[in-house]
Amino acid sequence: MSNQIILPSREMPTKWYNLVSELLPDNPPAPPMNARTNQPAGPEDLIPIFPMGVLEQEMSPERWIDIPEEVLEILSIWRPTPLVRARRLEEYLGTPAKIYYKNESVSPPGSHKPNTAVAQAYYNKREGIKNITTETGAGQWGSALSFACNMFGINCLVYMVKVSYEQKPYRKSLMHVWNGEVIPSPSNTTNSGRRVLEMDPDCPGSLGIAISEAVEAAFADEKTKYSLGSVLNHVMLHQTIIGLESIKQFEQIDDYPDVVIGCVGGGSNMAGFTFPFLGQRMRGEAKKPGIRVVAVEPTACPTLTKGVYAYDFGDQAQMTPAMLMYTLGHDFIPAGIHAGGLRYHGDSPLLSKMVNEKEVEAVAYHQNECYEAAVTFARTEGLLPAPETSHAIRAAIDEALKCKETGETKTIAFNYSGHGHFDLAGYDNYLDGKLVDYAYPEEAIRKSMANLPKITPPSMKK
Amino acid sequence: MSNQIILPSREMPTKWYNLVSELLPDNPPAPPMNARTNQPAGPEDLIPIFPMGVLEQEMSPERWIDIPEEVLEILSIWRPTPLVRARRLEEYLGTPAKIYYKNESVSPPGSHKPNTAVAQAYYNKREGIKNITTETGAGQWGSALSFACNMFGINCLVYMVKVSYEQKPYRKSLMHVWNGEVIPSPSNTTNSGRRVLEMDPDCPGSLGIAISEAVEAAFADEKTKYSLGSVLNHVMLHQTIIGLESIKQFEQIDDYPDVVIGCVGGGSNMAGFTFPFLGQRMRGEAKKPGIRVVAVEPTACPTLTKGVYAYDFGDQAQMTPAMLMYTLGHDFIPAGIHAGGLRYHGDSPLLSKMVNEKEVEAVAYHQNECYEAAVTFARTEGLLPAPETSHAIRAAIDEALKCKETGETKTIAFNYSGHGHFDLAGYDNYLDGKLVDYAYPEEAIRKSMANLPKITPPSMKK
Repeated sequence: MSNQIILPSREMPTKWYNLVSELLPDNPPAPPMNARTNQPAGPEDLIPIFPMGVLEQEMSPERWIDIPEEVLEILSIWRPTPLVRARRLEEYLGTPAKIYYKNESVSPPGSHKPNTAVAQAYYNKREGIKNITTETGAGQWGSALSFACNMFGINCLVYMVKVSYEQKPYRKSLMHVWNGEVIPSPSNTTNSGRRVLEMDPDCPGSLGIAISEAVEAAFADEKTKYSLGSVLNHVMLHQTIIGLESIKQFEQIDDYPDVVIGCVGGGSNMAGFTFPFLGQRMRGEAKKPGIRVVAVEPTACPTLTKGVYAYDFGDQAQMTPAMLMYTLGHDFIPAGIHAGGLRYHGDSPLLSKMVNEKEVEAVAYHQNECYEAAVTFARTEGLLPAPETSHAIRAAIDEALKCKETGETKTIAFNYSGHGHFDLAGYDNYLDGKLVDYAYPEEAIRKSMANLPKITPPSMKK
Repeated sequence: MSNQIILPSREMPTKWYNLVSELLPDNPPAPPMNARTNQPAGPEDLIPIFPMGVLEQEMSPERWIDIPEEVLEILSIWRPTPLVRARRLEEYLGTPAKIYYKNESVSPPGSHKPNTAVAQAYYNKREGIKNITTETGAGQWGSALSFACNMFGINCLVYMVKVSYEQKPYRKSLMHVWNGEVIPSPSNTTNSGRRVLEMDPDCPGSLGIAISEAVEAAFADEKTKYSLGSVLNHVMLHQTIIGLESIKQFEQIDDYPDVVIGCVGGGSNMAGFTFPFLGQRMRGEAKKPGIRVVAVEPTACPTLTKGVYAYDFGDQAQMTPAMLMYTLGHDFIPAGIHAGGLRYHGDSPLLSKMVNEKEVEAVAYHQNECYEAAVTFARTEGLLPAPETSHAIRAAIDEALKCKETGETKTIAFNYSGHGHFDLAGYDNYLDGKLVDYAYPEEAIRKSMANLPKITPPSMKK
């Protein structure tokens, strides 16, 4: 009868899961490259910006990595999170499928983001770091890192993509409550920001530009490091607690998904939810060996579905090492869709590799069809989704509607990555019929692609 | 190590608890009175506005009342809610006390309100009602009822106190997502609204005025009923699931509170959380026989601490029966504090009786000291409280600080009634030092008190 599947506190996972372990030794991830030297990036490229605890995890071949006690203790304020059966949505759709969502919106900042923010703040604190810089799109990551830094007494400086800064003023207020400092990006506080503003004073900003600003600010001081809320291996790792809990919750009800779905900006919530299932499939241990894994992105920023699989920079100003990933080019500035967290030109190299090897499927949607799914969800299940999350809901609904046609009783599960309590301006626009769908940005992508770095990829095979 | 105390789904209470049962037969609650006839209000006074299922509960002498299966099923989307140990807050305060909060903010509308909204919508649906009208202060109740009505396919019309309507535009958006219709009150859609606007076109509104408008609208049509989010016995009843879960959660960890605390507007979250504990004490079954029960209200609307215990109307236009309660007079319009849900001239008659008989203590706080407590809570525990909830936090912190002085290791528990995700304008004002503390409204109360109805109370003793 109950819709929530609740995991007892004692069942909370105490180790993270590392998908890289499934690829070794025969199919290792491509290394990040120093574009200047055309050599694999060494620790010296990353030590100025990341603490060692995090860098070790970035490179780790281990399958299981202990979650520090201090991190678990903070996560236990809201974890384990509920897995919930969406019965009312199923009934509304008239589907024979079962739909489940993992509710990550119950965290204090309202999304999955603190799963890695708390871990990263912990490793920085352990190494004596006093300040952390970062970027944020819609504000979920910036508020999560402000929250986590505040827990450890670290100062947090957030470069927030300007279009979101203006659309979502209360995300900024929330960061202020948690002692975070917030600067709209592009800003005139960094060289990279000033360069962008000279070219286009009205630039709406992008995650790529905001990353450049945050990385530049971190280089300025040795007690200051940078923190990234997605993309990198250690972030995917920290998020796997989502999927690991979900697997236990499905065991409780003796079910298992046929398909697991997540929305993708940099990939972290999608990877965190799905990689533990994917690992089971790759090891031949999945209860349903054919379990599908689906990544959902916006048509306005179609990295996985329309990008190229190539080495590119993580940021606009080319300050990061180059990584092999799906990319639209580091110069690409996506249209100002409300799902600010999905406006990223690249994607997690690990997730990109899985897409490239057909382990993971990718689909793209326009924002109006996603808002339609979000409103349907809110009117059936009650919860108000973040615009990012609405992409996963759209895909889950479409999977359920396919089951309605075929009569299949599949189990569909998606990650409910965050709530939309700070995104009601977007809902107002949608309900008023004023929301724009942006055409596939063909010309902008073509231009941006011309600026990919020239990297000679090292051989991947041993 | 875990901070959350999670109740398994199978442990969710299946009956509500009725505190009235402890008072019978010797000390029954005073009946509502028809002020025109000076006789106890009969069903004929209430049937036009409430469904029978609800009226039966309003008058019920039973200790335990079954929660309908259909109601439980919807509540199970987010219930049982977590009880959480506030370890970081304890450490910050340096108190030997243990502090726990019951987290009602995880519901879709973000507060305890849907516990009764779902039940009331259910009983209305069962009796063929098509439309429900209501009032709302800060918007928590209006959004909860919109959510619940939407679940049962009932239209919901919400009169929202104008000052909150303007302070919190996104609460209105949220109601729209759930198909609710929202009108700022006082409005020109009712006679009572028009009368107020004639006297004062800039009237900020009050819950008393909004109730008049909603009740008037419900009288207009026999398929339309009215729903009240607090004050009445059946609402207190529906909220007891909070305290009943909490008792089980304290059993899990073999602890029991020395003091239970809730903020009070009409009294429902406070009663819902504390009455099951109070009932245990009154029956001599409390694990700590001296458990204290504390109600917290704003100084700007000091009903329990400065009001009189007298018969008064529930609404400004005198449309409701008169009830024996603490009141500041039905004409009293509180200052526009951010805790809009606490701006009510009266209080639950049942809670008022408990305060009058010294079973429950009452305290009042200014909004700045409450915001200070809220920010302290957000910076230690992470969660961002509603301004209403901040009153309970203030009182809990003060109890913990008393323990610091005396060295007592008390267990303090409060109801975390709702989140403040739609209240960040208030936080901005507080952090900018712009938040006003209103003086005790002595003159306004004196004036309003002169208009209390002349009721001859029936003898309470058998």
